[in-house]
Amino acid sequence: MSTITAVETSDVRFPTSVELDGSDAMNPDPDYSAAYLVIRTDSPDGLEGHGFVFTIGRGNEVEAAAIQALAGHLLGKNCEELLADMGGTWKMMVHDSQLRWLGPEKGVMHMAIGAVVNALWDLKAKRAGLPLWQLLARMSPEEIVALVDFRYLSDALTPAEALDILQRAVPGRQERETMLLAEGYPGYTTTPGWLGYSDERLIRLSGEAVQDGFGQIKLKVGADLDDDIRRLRAARATVGPDVRIAVDANQRWDVDTAVEWIRQLAPFDLAWVEEPTSPDDVLGHAAIARAIAPVRVATGEHVANRVVFKQMLQAGSLQVLQIDAARVAGVNENVAILLLAAKFGVPVCPHAGGVGLCEAVQHLSMFDFVAVSGEKEDRVIEFVDHLHEHFVTPVDVRQGRYWAPLAPGGGSQMLAATLQTYAFPDGPAWAAGIEQEMAH
Amino acid sequence: MSTITAVETSDVRFPTSVELDGSDAMNPDPDYSAAYLVIRTDSPDGLEGHGFVFTIGRGNEVEAAAIQALAGHLLGKNCEELLADMGGTWKMMVHDSQLRWLGPEKGVMHMAIGAVVNALWDLKAKRAGLPLWQLLARMSPEEIVALVDFRYLSDALTPAEALDILQRAVPGRQERETMLLAEGYPGYTTTPGWLGYSDERLIRLSGEAVQDGFGQIKLKVGADLDDDIRRLRAARATVGPDVRIAVDANQRWDVDTAVEWIRQLAPFDLAWVEEPTSPDDVLGHAAIARAIAPVRVATGEHVANRVVFKQMLQAGSLQVLQIDAARVAGVNENVAILLLAAKFGVPVCPHAGGVGLCEAVQHLSMFDFVAVSGEKEDRVIEFVDHLHEHFVTPVDVRQGRYWAPLAPGGGSQMLAATLQTYAFPDGPAWAAGIEQEMAH
Repeated sequence: MSTITAVETSDVRFPTSVELDGSDAMNPDPDYSAAYLVIRTDSPDGLEGHGFVFTIGRGNEVEAAAIQALAGHLLGKNCEELLADMGGTWKMMVHDSQLRWLGPEKGVMHMAIGAVVNALWDLKAKRAGLPLWQLLARMSPEEIVALVDFRYLSDALTPAEALDILQRAVPGRQERETMLLAEGYPGYTTTPGWLGYSDERLIRLSGEAVQDGFGQIKLKVGADLDDDIRRLRAARATVGPDVRIAVDANQRWDVDTAVEWIRQLAPFDLAWVEEPTSPDDVLGHAAIARAIAPVRVATGEHVANRVVFKQMLQAGSLQVLQIDAARVAGVNENVAILLLAAKFGVPVCPHAGGVGLCEAVQHLSMFDFVAVSGEKEDRVIEFVDHLHEHFVTPVDVRQGRYWAPLAPGGGSQMLAATLQTYAFPDGPAWAAGIEQEMAH
Repeated sequence: MSTITAVETSDVRFPTSVELDGSDAMNPDPDYSAAYLVIRTDSPDGLEGHGFVFTIGRGNEVEAAAIQALAGHLLGKNCEELLADMGGTWKMMVHDSQLRWLGPEKGVMHMAIGAVVNALWDLKAKRAGLPLWQLLARMSPEEIVALVDFRYLSDALTPAEALDILQRAVPGRQERETMLLAEGYPGYTTTPGWLGYSDERLIRLSGEAVQDGFGQIKLKVGADLDDDIRRLRAARATVGPDVRIAVDANQRWDVDTAVEWIRQLAPFDLAWVEEPTSPDDVLGHAAIARAIAPVRVATGEHVANRVVFKQMLQAGSLQVLQIDAARVAGVNENVAILLLAAKFGVPVCPHAGGVGLCEAVQHLSMFDFVAVSGEKEDRVIEFVDHLHEHFVTPVDVRQGRYWAPLAPGGGSQMLAATLQTYAFPDGPAWAAGIEQEMAH
């Protein structure tokens, strides 16, 4: 047996606001950041579990404090026992009766649990010598069901229904794994479409996206209608009729405004409209979806937990479900959400970008394809070509596709040099310009 | 003018788990706590603003860190400008584009904003020489509307509708204020009903509640059906048919379980069933409410924000709306919620207890009576006789009623000695037994 000997947290921030990478209608000047943790054990294998919460700057230190608040559930514990029962390990943290008050199951504390859960999965996959997607996709249906907490889900999905979904996918697992390794998984790119970019940059990057093989791009909208129409027209003219264009409002609108605005953009043939309003507004999204059909509503990157996703599926609030690797409580909760989506027959197209979200979330889509939905038609993983160089196993995206990672682990490990250079506020990347940055 | 010179945070915890005060089906061993802040200025008046987030122990330090993360919005700022435009001040914090990622508008960061907002209101009321309820109730309808952020609400409540509600209440304000000062505001008590108490204690405390003049008590349920039936039978026999008995499941059930369980308890004539399931489950609460009618569903103490309350009102998820002084983003957001409840004609019966929740929330119900709904029929403020001695202006609850506070401020200021004695982990109340406490 081995014992967990350390839970180390870091506050890592990249000064992205300088270039307006990642700018949108609600997030004008993000500094992409990670509240990061490393789990160490006394095992002679020397393997570590790495995980993080993605944030956009201020408050990253609060998220790091929340991760540290969970250390008591790990330090000194038998590592094999925790990893052997990941369903139980998840419940131990999510159901901590005192910490639960701080959500429940939402916000800073829930995301912190997600980082810890993902770090444990990273360690478990490294010990198994498998990439996370393959580790998950080789578990039995019964083992996968045991990862999920069905509390608050049973009116929409029972353990028996989940088991049935997974069992139906077993016969095709091998064939789909082979297909995945040969073909990759489709991606789409948001790189051209940030609001802070000039029209010239938008057009140039849209053209490059098509040349790079992407079948879909995404544009940020919602700040100014005339700007949105002009930018969409330019993008459509650049990519032609066969490349899909999605738009993303980043929660900018109320219900009525969303409906009116989207109707103005619909002639440009939208793949979906993302985050039209508050991510908490199940009924609002449903009203928007009814009004703008057949244009599809997509949401999920800010949906707090599986209970809200459940309702969005029940109410028809979304036609594209966007999981995020670092918003809910980690792999286990995303497995629950993948099963809910499969039950309702809704395609899952993950949110990614940020810091490490591409590296992490690809494992979940690939697991979904092999062992849950069995589908990758009409499914794409978001891609932003940004900050991947800071990861030990960066994504391999070529020809508009994610190529399945083969390195053991969950993809979440940053380079040691990055953790030092971008440590906030004392790392070399910050120490010089810190006063200027803190001021804005 | 005056400038904000300090934002001091404290981690205050009371070792309540020793006595099982506050125990329920989801919270078996709470240590009632407050992440507390004091705002100081350089004004010669020496007045301070005090505010807090109530938590139940572990993680209180994370909440304190979240409050500290907001200090940059206050330190060095012109205090009069912040206090003169509390609507703008609220938006400045809630719409902080980087901090928003940590919710959005939910969990640790949103509650921290609530504490800061409430501390500013405490200071504003002290400067006005008025209790908070009176300060609010003497603002013009236009000033009150300007406190509210209508983003995401306009499909249910527009500024014009809110103004209309408030204007209709103006003519009766003076009469209702006189009535409130003469009669008090009805309370109910949860003191008898904690799950950790023996039947003997439940019976004794229920009898005392009736003798003390309470017209309603509340019992915790949801751990064991036979226990619940036995305890309800004993309580009903003790208090007789005319005292209302509410039950509180603290989110213990899934939808179907809730319906079945409540049907078994309904013969005891329930005032309401509180928190039958996840506080995020708008549709689940609506399904339960339809199934158990005419028994009423109550919820709100864990409802994250006004957007979720909006939907619960739209969907018929609750028939009793329970605001909480320290869950949403402070006074401003609770004003929005009171206006939503008035629009939908749903009675507001605040959650209280904990640490200082009674002291804080009474102001909101009294403001609502004088200047919003104009009603106190079928409305009661929760009361738990616990920890009030730690406040500078503890509630005055006699004859089963809250008597209107007259001291200037929002009621949220703790005694300086309490802040020292119960400081965690180094205060005298903790220093001795700390190892034992940390272990559980």
